[in-house]
Amino acid sequence: MNNLVVQNIPRADQSIIDGLGNCGVSTVHEAQNRTGLLPHNFRPIYSGSRLAGSALTILAPPDDNWMLHVAMEQVVAGDILILGTTSPSDAGYFGELLAVSAKAKGAIGLVIDAGVRDVRELKELAFPVWSRVICSQGTVKETLGSVNVPIVIGSITINPGDVIVADDDGVCIVNRAAAKHTLEKSLDRLSAEEEKRKRLASGELGIDMYGMRKALKEKGLKYE
Amino acid sequence: MNNLVVQNIPRADQSIIDGLGNCGVSTVHEAQNRTGLLPHNFRPIYSGSRLAGSALTILAPPDDNWMLHVAMEQVVAGDILILGTTSPSDAGYFGELLAVSAKAKGAIGLVIDAGVRDVRELKELAFPVWSRVICSQGTVKETLGSVNVPIVIGSITINPGDVIVADDDGVCIVNRAAAKHTLEKSLDRLSAEEEKRKRLASGELGIDMYGMRKALKEKGLKYE
Amino acid sequence: MNNLVVQNIPRADQSIIDGLGNCGVSTVHEAQNRTGLLPHNFRPIYSGSRLAGSALTILAPPDDNWMLHVAMEQVVAGDILILGTTSPSDAGYFGELLAVSAKAKGAIGLVIDAGVRDVRELKELAFPVWSRVICSQGTVKETLGSVNVPIVIGSITINPGDVIVADDDGVCIVNRAAAKHTLEKSLDRLSAEEEKRKRLASGELGIDMYGMRKALKEKGLKYE
Amino acid sequence: MNNLVVQNIPRADQSIIDGLGNCGVSTVHEAQNRTGLLPHNFRPIYSGSRLAGSALTILAPPDDNWMLHVAMEQVVAGDILILGTTSPSDAGYFGELLAVSAKAKGAIGLVIDAGVRDVRELKELAFPVWSRVICSQGTVKETLGSVNVPIVIGSITINPGDVIVADDDGVCIVNRAAAKHTLEKSLDRLSAEEEKRKRLASGELGIDMYGMRKALKEKGLKYE
Amino acid sequence: MNNLVVQNIPRADQSIIDGLGNCGVSTVHEAQNRTGLLPHNFRPIYSGSRLAGSALTILAPPDDNWMLHVAMEQVVAGDILILGTTSPSDAGYFGELLAVSAKAKGAIGLVIDAGVRDVRELKELAFPVWSRVICSQGTVKETLGSVNVPIVIGSITINPGDVIVADDDGVCIVNRAAAKHTLEKSLDRLSAEEEKRKRLASGELGIDMYGMRKALKEKGLKYE
Amino acid sequence: MNNLVVQNIPRADQSIIDGLGNCGVSTVHEAQNRTGLLPHNFRPIYSGSRLAGSALTILAPPDDNWMLHVAMEQVVAGDILILGTTSPSDAGYFGELLAVSAKAKGAIGLVIDAGVRDVRELKELAFPVWSRVICSQGTVKETLGSVNVPIVIGSITINPGDVIVADDDGVCIVNRAAAKHTLEKSLDRLSAEEEKRKRLASGELGIDMYGMRKALKEKGLKYE
Repeated sequence: MNNLVVQNIPRADQSIIDGLGNCGVSTVHEAQNRTGLLPHNFRPIYSGSRLAGSALTILAPPDDNWMLHVAMEQVVAGDILILGTTSPSDAGYFGELLAVSAKAKGAIGLVIDAGVRDVRELKELAFPVWSRVICSQGTVKETLGSVNVPIVIGSITINPGDVIVADDDGVCIVNRAAAKHTLEKSLDRLSAEEEKRKRLASGELGIDMYGMRKALKEKGLKYE
Repeated sequence: MNNLVVQNIPRADQSIIDGLGNCGVSTVHEAQNRTGLLPHNFRPIYSGSRLAGSALTILAPPDDNWMLHVAMEQVVAGDILILGTTSPSDAGYFGELLAVSAKAKGAIGLVIDAGVRDVRELKELAFPVWSRVICSQGTVKETLGSVNVPIVIGSITINPGDVIVADDDGVCIVNRAAAKHTLEKSLDRLSAEEEKRKRLASGELGIDMYGMRKALKEKGLKYE
Repeated sequence: MNNLVVQNIPRADQSIIDGLGNCGVSTVHEAQNRTGLLPHNFRPIYSGSRLAGSALTILAPPDDNWMLHVAMEQVVAGDILILGTTSPSDAGYFGELLAVSAKAKGAIGLVIDAGVRDVRELKELAFPVWSRVICSQGTVKETLGSVNVPIVIGSITINPGDVIVADDDGVCIVNRAAAKHTLEKSLDRLSAEEEKRKRLASGELGIDMYGMRKALKEKGLKYE
Repeated sequence: MNNLVVQNIPRADQSIIDGLGNCGVSTVHEAQNRTGLLPHNFRPIYSGSRLAGSALTILAPPDDNWMLHVAMEQVVAGDILILGTTSPSDAGYFGELLAVSAKAKGAIGLVIDAGVRDVRELKELAFPVWSRVICSQGTVKETLGSVNVPIVIGSITINPGDVIVADDDGVCIVNRAAAKHTLEKSLDRLSAEEEKRKRLASGELGIDMYGMRKALKEKGLKYE
Repeated sequence: MNNLVVQNIPRADQSIIDGLGNCGVSTVHEAQNRTGLLPHNFRPIYSGSRLAGSALTILAPPDDNWMLHVAMEQVVAGDILILGTTSPSDAGYFGELLAVSAKAKGAIGLVIDAGVRDVRELKELAFPVWSRVICSQGTVKETLGSVNVPIVIGSITINPGDVIVADDDGVCIVNRAAAKHTLEKSLDRLSAEEEKRKRLASGELGIDMYGMRKALKEKGLKYE
Repeated sequence: MNNLVVQNIPRADQSIIDGLGNCGVSTVHEAQNRTGLLPHNFRPIYSGSRLAGSALTILAPPDDNWMLHVAMEQVVAGDILILGTTSPSDAGYFGELLAVSAKAKGAIGLVIDAGVRDVRELKELAFPVWSRVICSQGTVKETLGSVNVPIVIGSITINPGDVIVADDDGVCIVNRAAAKHTLEKSLDRLSAEEEKRKRLASGELGIDMYGMRKALKEKGLKYE
């Protein structure tokens, strides 16, 4: 899988992707048994975005953003670019010009295990980015990497075509094959929460609504 | 103090609490001789809030938010929930449903030495949270802790009923017994600042206003 | 250079300074061959500012802000205060009253290798600050330092009168003597980008626009 | 408790202290229900020491070691000095001369929530130190603190006269009043471990020795 | 792969494993094109060990070491235990009793993405451990994980039966299928280094031995 | 100063250098008014070394050790190599073969603001290294840097020919022009300490020896 660009990758149905985006990171993460969450130091560069898209994966050398240029040719409308590196780097791989190019091709966001710059311009372009760091330090274009091969970020494997869900809580990866099932479980969860929200909002206690009093007593909780 | 819920705790007068909230963290912290400040990695999940409330303390096991549910029954209007753990955890103990329940009971905010999630929803609910981290990773409900016992965060002891002041500068704890005195000193400080602000705004130098020139010269400051 | 205040320092032409401010950090940093960038943990306390000014340098002892008061007398309209310490400190050296004084003298911002407080008030005053940390912990006024001597932050030397450019991407230092040349190169860069932006926005690929296909092939990139 | 030196503090029986020292940190920490452990970034400056002593507590300002000099007068043979600060500091508060003085008075070690220097000389003197950092940066003697008042390190409260146990695993605090009970439980634990150690060394499996197979099966563990 | 123990896994030839152990981490890492290196915060708890073994993988919940007990039954002589977690944890999963058990079964070391304790006893047992942290804090035995399934540590995937090489430089993973090839390349590298070492020891310069002068000149290196 | 090798640099007298090495880091750092100390995360890769030498400075690109090879030609017996980077890097720039070459040319140690590998072999060669990190990850030889130009590490400027003092406490830089004066002040300090050491060892208290009791009383220290 070295120096390889995979040109056609399967993607999930757009309706499933959109459904997952509406559910948001925390719901989706719970719905798939608390798996797929990127480390919590991946933060949005500006708040308020919530979206989902197909993972267009990029594996890049440290301090070298050449593969981002190569990746643009592979973008399909609705894709989210996600970049991992072969060695740690905080450099600013991505900025305004790449965002203009990405938008023109239909990409809707970026998740990057490195740095990003031109924060102000990216916000004006409404191109959301989740990164570990904001850094003006530029990169070179000297060494190859790969596009649309599996990458790993923070112990989570991302396969090309997996669904990425991202919002102010962070970033969660949904395996493409499991996306429909995860959406169903997410929607079930949201439905169940709707009823709970009403009861809690009316002042009912969670320890009553969930029937926890007996277990608390058995475990030995004392009141004074 | 293990597995204990203390049901009735003394609280400071609401007028004193409100007064401290209006003064803000940095003024209150100075007024009580620079004590009571939580570590500076406690940050608001959204900016612009400034409030004070009575501490409803929660001591919880790592990765386990059961005690938050137990604590809801003890909320009195105006309380701020404050949670410490018995072992470090970055998990997301608190999210939208708990915030709905907390608001219904009258709680006005949360300070948590762990993670929080549903940031977007919490902002929509106008339920401010100060935390060390934003993290979607969920928790279990298996092990007991305590409610309304003294807890320690970052070398600061928080007793139930202490006053918590929180804003964009961070979080400061005011001992309940000292709250009235701290408010008086805070107001004195604000009054004194009002006069200073005007003089500085008019262009007077601090080294003149504070009479520092003599001390600077004696210490050996040279001008070139 | 111990305990010294240098009273008259050369500054760059205001038109050059303003020009650099319009270009922004990432452009200026690139234009001067990727030099002068402060570490990426220097972040704005509120987003949306972009400005440039002459460096009024302050070298201060740990947890001691006396020299900030001394520095105010040296402010010329358009200056940006920049403070380094002789030993690491996270204390809050700067807050509302100092900002009122700084504004009255014509200073337009602060870059500080330490902490800052009164974040809400500084935002209301529209006095932007870039710092490593937000911290209410106060400082003393006991030990001397210097004003307008060279200081070093994160391996970057800042001379008094150098141009500081700061925005949401971070902070970049431009040597005063090189400021005109750096502005010219920055403007060249922006001009060149304008054309590229249009072509990329129209859907042209960077690998075509930059003529990268040949080099990619020679390096061994495979498509599948 | 400001600027106070408490001159006579109660200490635990020396035989109990010695017994706890023989048990070591991990055993003692377990014996008191996993409480009292200082954060794991407290490390010995050289390996191989295991000891226990009575806590002579010192509360010091940042970058100021005056109170260490004051504390020496209060040392009783067998004491371990333990220093917390009122604000974070990495400075080197303690070095060879203070160690010579401490040894002359009968102190047997130091635990410090700050820095230490003269590592080579301290090792030659066989004066063990547990610290967060090794740092040559010196301190001043300008501001008072207290000696033999309760201090807090990493959420653990240390009262003067508490028993400190320290070895290559870290540092654990035993409340003086509970020291006898904790020693008994520690010795019970060591006795129980002796038998287990033999059985495990002979090749018996823990899952058999502890009778875990049934619970594993019930929880759903599958073998393939 | 949830809650699964895979009982029979393929392992590499012992002669290949031993050969890789003799080469050491840095050589093996280079020989396989700089892949397979665990993050550099994995450090030996005592220095001087260099070994290789077959990976017996363990996936464990946070703060829960139950699966280590389960794993012991699967140990084959020469194995190195390697433990990843499903959520970050610094707790001390492993200590003296588990080491006694592991040695009795033939295990020769442990690599753990969490904490370890009983450092002194582990050194006396000559049971080397590479970990991120030393921490006395104990764990529970409540939740299942898996044994001998693929795990990921710091973006490196470790399959059961892969070869682990570890020494004072860190930890490197060799894919089992590639182990023979990696050993050959490692030995080639060591042979080539033998000749180079002699020439460098005699005073020959690397820029001459490697013929670098021409390239340096072409790139524009100036001598003054 | 780009891509420049300065071939003949002034060095301090060897007798002065040796004298400083005997004094050690903490004494020298104090003697020059607590200046010149590198950040405390520069640690020796093995303990017990104490030495001084002339700085042969190297400025290198990230992840590229080409300039280390170039630097070898400039080594004079007694030099200590000191490497800074133009952008942060944790890669392992230096290992056994470079150490063999450095020793053959007369270099006596390395200080590096990056990573190092072959720790075991470097210890066997008795070639001490102070670094921020131990890391097997290799580097390339593609981009030029400079040799014997001023470099900056952690806000300390190191000029070629400055004296480097290093031991288990860390690394301190002595300006060449000030080396004789700093040695004199260091020796004065050691002489003064000799007398103090004897008095403290005999049980005299520092607060008596330094005459601190009056000042403590005036500041308001209370005894109870």
